Amino acid sequence: MARNIQSLERAAAMLRLLAGGERRLGLSDIASSLGLAKGTAHGILRTLQHEGFVEQDEASGRYQLGAELLRLGTTYLDVHELRARALVWTDDLARSSGESVYLGVLHQQGVLIVHHVFRPDDSRQVLEIGAMQPLHSTALGKVLAAYDPVAHSEALDSSRKAFTDRTVCAPEEFEHLLDLTRARGYAADLEETWEGVASIAAPIHDRRRMPVGAVGIAGAVERLCRDGEPRPELVAAVRDCARAVSRDLGAARF
Amino acid sequence: MARNIQSLERAAAMLRLLAGGERRLGLSDIASSLGLAKGTAHGILRTLQHEGFVEQDEASGRYQLGAELLRLGTTYLDVHELRARALVWTDDLARSSGESVYLGVLHQQGVLIVHHVFRPDDSRQVLEIGAMQPLHSTALGKVLAAYDPVAHSEALDSSRKAFTDRTVCAPEEFEHLLDLTRARGYAADLEETWEGVASIAAPIHDRRRMPVGAVGIAGAVERLCRDGEPRPELVAAVRDCARAVSRDLGAARF
Repeated sequence: MARNIQSLERAAAMLRLLAGGERRLGLSDIASSLGLAKGTAHGILRTLQHEGFVEQDEASGRYQLGAELLRLGTTYLDVHELRARALVWTDDLARSSGESVYLGVLHQQGVLIVHHVFRPDDSRQVLEIGAMQPLHSTALGKVLAAYDPVAHSEALDSSRKAFTDRTVCAPEEFEHLLDLTRARGYAADLEETWEGVASIAAPIHDRRRMPVGAVGIAGAVERLCRDGEPRPELVAAVRDCARAVSRDLGAARF
Repeated sequence: MARNIQSLERAAAMLRLLAGGERRLGLSDIASSLGLAKGTAHGILRTLQHEGFVEQDEASGRYQLGAELLRLGTTYLDVHELRARALVWTDDLARSSGESVYLGVLHQQGVLIVHHVFRPDDSRQVLEIGAMQPLHSTALGKVLAAYDPVAHSEALDSSRKAFTDRTVCAPEEFEHLLDLTRARGYAADLEETWEGVASIAAPIHDRRRMPVGAVGIAGAVERLCRDGEPRPELVAAVRDCARAVSRDLGAARF
């Protein structure tokens, strides 16, 4: 049993390795990065390749992530109850706010974007479903850290990197921000993650009153803010959306 | 070594099981479906859960696919050279044709959609990245089956289900369709997969002249066809796009 678990852990570590940094690696790089004998690493890679989790470039012999991960990841979205319940409400929020809408859940040490509605204009936009956002600086992340004890620990344990001059990094200041988030019922990120970009988010609760995710909008700080504060009508629209999704998940209305 | 491989194969089989049919399964169901002892199945599931590949519902104790698959699947897209090269060209095709654009590659016994550009109108549309399409009935699938020998074998070995009255299922008829596809340089699907929906697709080649994928448009048969045939200006737009992506991948111009 222990042996089985070890090979799975090693396979998962390989996939994580291929998901970060270089993304195309040779056998020697993979084996040495994970401290494995080349033969051991090759046996795992061969099986992962056979199952479609890893692909090998014919010319260079290097390994990269495989198509089966995309298929399974999409199936994960299909069974995601929160996402299914949020589809219509997030579309409405994009229309009413005129901004991009994001739905996020806690995953590992960050926010995993499980749904993204494009800003309803004709501009070219990049889909961010499956992308990760930091917990300590984004509106979605602060909402999760404020309401979900696990997210709170992850945010406090993280290095809280300063992405801009406005990122809040010191623990006391960060805790104060979370207190403020709980008192207001929403969080904002005013150029704390990306220069020029603001975001506003609110928590989603399920039938057991557990915080299961966050929904928010993000866009140019000039559009989202007035006099250095999030525009009240946008805050209201985001909170309306979060309440609607929560109700659809069975949360009590009061 | 053999033992390592076996546990990985079993883990992959579990993920495939959770990706199809029920999608939320208890330990007993999983163990009996895969012919494993409960203790063995539990050891694998516990490790998969620890790595984020599987999640367990607290209330029911049932297992479902985990968020890490979405993160890794998105990373797979990020390193996908064909997709990266196709982004701008597929946007242009959606604009010029006014229809939804799909980019597909062979995966297992079907076409895996790796990029999807929404039809440029304000209608509500569902993102299909990560979804699978059949090889024998869709335009994307027929293009792959016509140009890629591996896809050809997969299509011939498959059961070629009749989705509508117009689906071509008999092997000789299907081979004739593929000959026609190669002679014309594109494939069409006129309500052979979905009632009311037509699609047109063309092959993408890389620098070694290998068929690496297909690009196409899909939409209402009334818009895509005239007098029962794909509209020539749409066929031209799809083929232009396929040629442009092929050139960006290094394919020779003649």
